[in-house]
Amino acid sequence: MKAAILSVGTELLMGQITNTNTVYLSRALNLMGIDVMYHHTVGDNPKRLAEMIRTAFEECELVITTGGLGPTQDDMTKEIACEVLGDELVMHPEILQSIKERMSGYKIKEMTPNNIKQAEMPKRAVIFRNSCGTAPGFALEDTEGAKAIICMPGPPREMTTMFEKSIAPWLAGKADGKLFFRELRCFGIGESELETVLLPLIDGQTDPTLATYAKESECSVRIASKRSTVEEAKAAVDEMTDKVCDIVGKFVYSKDNEELPKVVCKELLNKGLTVASAESCTGGMFAAAVTDIPGSSDVFPGGYVTYSNEAKMRDLGVKKETLDEFGAVSEETAMEMAEGVAKRSGSDIGISVTGIAGPGGGSEEKPVGLAYVGFVYGDSRLCKKIDRRINERARNRKYAVMCMFDMILRNI
Amino acid sequence: MKAAILSVGTELLMGQITNTNTVYLSRALNLMGIDVMYHHTVGDNPKRLAEMIRTAFEECELVITTGGLGPTQDDMTKEIACEVLGDELVMHPEILQSIKERMSGYKIKEMTPNNIKQAEMPKRAVIFRNSCGTAPGFALEDTEGAKAIICMPGPPREMTTMFEKSIAPWLAGKADGKLFFRELRCFGIGESELETVLLPLIDGQTDPTLATYAKESECSVRIASKRSTVEEAKAAVDEMTDKVCDIVGKFVYSKDNEELPKVVCKELLNKGLTVASAESCTGGMFAAAVTDIPGSSDVFPGGYVTYSNEAKMRDLGVKKETLDEFGAVSEETAMEMAEGVAKRSGSDIGISVTGIAGPGGGSEEKPVGLAYVGFVYGDSRLCKKIDRRINERARNRKYAVMCMFDMILRNI
Repeated sequence: MKAAILSVGTELLMGQITNTNTVYLSRALNLMGIDVMYHHTVGDNPKRLAEMIRTAFEECELVITTGGLGPTQDDMTKEIACEVLGDELVMHPEILQSIKERMSGYKIKEMTPNNIKQAEMPKRAVIFRNSCGTAPGFALEDTEGAKAIICMPGPPREMTTMFEKSIAPWLAGKADGKLFFRELRCFGIGESELETVLLPLIDGQTDPTLATYAKESECSVRIASKRSTVEEAKAAVDEMTDKVCDIVGKFVYSKDNEELPKVVCKELLNKGLTVASAESCTGGMFAAAVTDIPGSSDVFPGGYVTYSNEAKMRDLGVKKETLDEFGAVSEETAMEMAEGVAKRSGSDIGISVTGIAGPGGGSEEKPVGLAYVGFVYGDSRLCKKIDRRINERARNRKYAVMCMFDMILRNI
Repeated sequence: MKAAILSVGTELLMGQITNTNTVYLSRALNLMGIDVMYHHTVGDNPKRLAEMIRTAFEECELVITTGGLGPTQDDMTKEIACEVLGDELVMHPEILQSIKERMSGYKIKEMTPNNIKQAEMPKRAVIFRNSCGTAPGFALEDTEGAKAIICMPGPPREMTTMFEKSIAPWLAGKADGKLFFRELRCFGIGESELETVLLPLIDGQTDPTLATYAKESECSVRIASKRSTVEEAKAAVDEMTDKVCDIVGKFVYSKDNEELPKVVCKELLNKGLTVASAESCTGGMFAAAVTDIPGSSDVFPGGYVTYSNEAKMRDLGVKKETLDEFGAVSEETAMEMAEGVAKRSGSDIGISVTGIAGPGGGSEEKPVGLAYVGFVYGDSRLCKKIDRRINERARNRKYAVMCMFDMILRNI
């Protein structure tokens, strides 16, 4: 099947936001064996939108749109989809009801006409619920069933959730052959190196296919197979997974595309352990990542963001002499922070980090990017020095948080 | 002038890389007063590339391509540009010479035929040097001077450098009108309501134009004007900004598209105030957002993530009786947390939050989405109840953090 991805929104043409929906959808569709032929972006303009859809249908059987489903007057994707594929909008009372329920949560008393407009949908369409917002999505086929348009909301979280829950299963039913894929997530190895060591497996690949991807602070290997049954595809992927793990297994922390904080939380829960955090340069990002996971209160009683030296001494019992002699960014301070937080909180594990995130604060001896992660658990006392010399605050902070989780996972 | 941006590369259609060139070019072109009408992406396929350029020229006078200028056989943008605008490729000896010089830096001894291909350029084209790579760019006009194609290399650093040094000056000579725009960021009002109250200003808009956008937990209004000089455009935007602020000014926290945490940090710095945080349901997200800003150590000594009741009592001095009588999620607990953190840290301001982020932990009396933000500063003792009844952990947490910043901004 050939597809075009069509993004709708003047803000994209103005360059106000980066189009991340397109990269997500391209990956997801290619994985399902659907060939993405074009990306197009048009503004909130009905004539251009209609023409673009018609142009896309000249070569593609599937057009996927994101954006332009909201309540305001410049949102008109639904109307245009009807115009192009010959259908009409009708009111769906159950959608109206769910919008009402959703809005009552916001304590908004009256529905405006543009809220009501959101409950209108093409008559022949299959409707997809929006579990993260008000505007539902839909798939509309032409009367011969030869062409289909799928319309989704523009906000990335609404779009990706809807794609995973509803669109992917709907498309799977239309595809020829069954696809199974798995994404192995790795930490501690770069994408170039990962690809190099896996090259013997990647070269000449037909099925399963292997591809490496760089993510922020980590990378992943996707293994996909398309066979006549899901079972066959899964067996082929499993076999290849073993081969990949023979080579880079020590870097793989998840075989199910789970994020590192979630993997660590599960492992702590399984082992009945608790962890408390003491953060300086990451300023609460570790704690925020742990508590992002529902139920994390069972493994995480709390943490300290000790940005100033005073806070490090007062809350964690870091000694003044240690700070004076070795500085706040040192192995010694990191270890006293980890000891302090474990003791004070009564947790099984104390994890700490102190470093120079940048852009300022670096010196020749202690450059931006330098950080120390401290780990205390039972008799274990470990410290990892991070020395990347990258002058990017956000990346340094994110990487340090990943190192904290990695340190826990490898040592419990 | 109307323009289309055309990205060339199969890796984009596979979703292997995010298209950052397009967002950069869109911003830059709009700022120059050039209207970007479309973004298109096609793979390394000569037929589709030629058709896409022809389609774009139906409405636009300018087509800007990135990618497909490299030395390999699937790079064919130059050939297609000649085909569409009626020109032929000729060898440019001075380009060949500069490629030779560049390659000698890489210690590569012999030039391959595909290196030589890079020195061929359309006969009528204006050539632009590539100071970061080997493939030069060019602008090619049709014989009537009515249409132009600009071709640039795909790697972002090569493209942006070439744009700034060569393309922008070339285009500046061709543009009509100058654009000025401003984005007002709002918190505490939804996009539908924002549009509804601004409708008298939006309806029948010609110049300046107004548009509303929804972001996560907040929304914004973009005001743009295109006049013969930047000064005139700015004056028109300023006048409209005042009209907008007359209606929704109390929700506007930035007129320069700055994020709320940054606005708050600046304000604290201006006033010489410090803030310390006590977080339960947001688990460190407030602290992480503050410390995301370079230099935040001047306003933020640290914070506490008190996820468990024990941590609330131990670290913040919340009374056991308060927790027993009113519960962890209550105005009383929020205020004791804020008092506690201000006192313990010696900060001017204590800000706290306690709530039920979901998906579990809710009850009829205290549903998911309920949260309390506490604020202590000098003689001020304030508490805001958040009662949204939304069962989405991430959104509830994000919204609570925004409320914390909003509370500070409004009360210092």
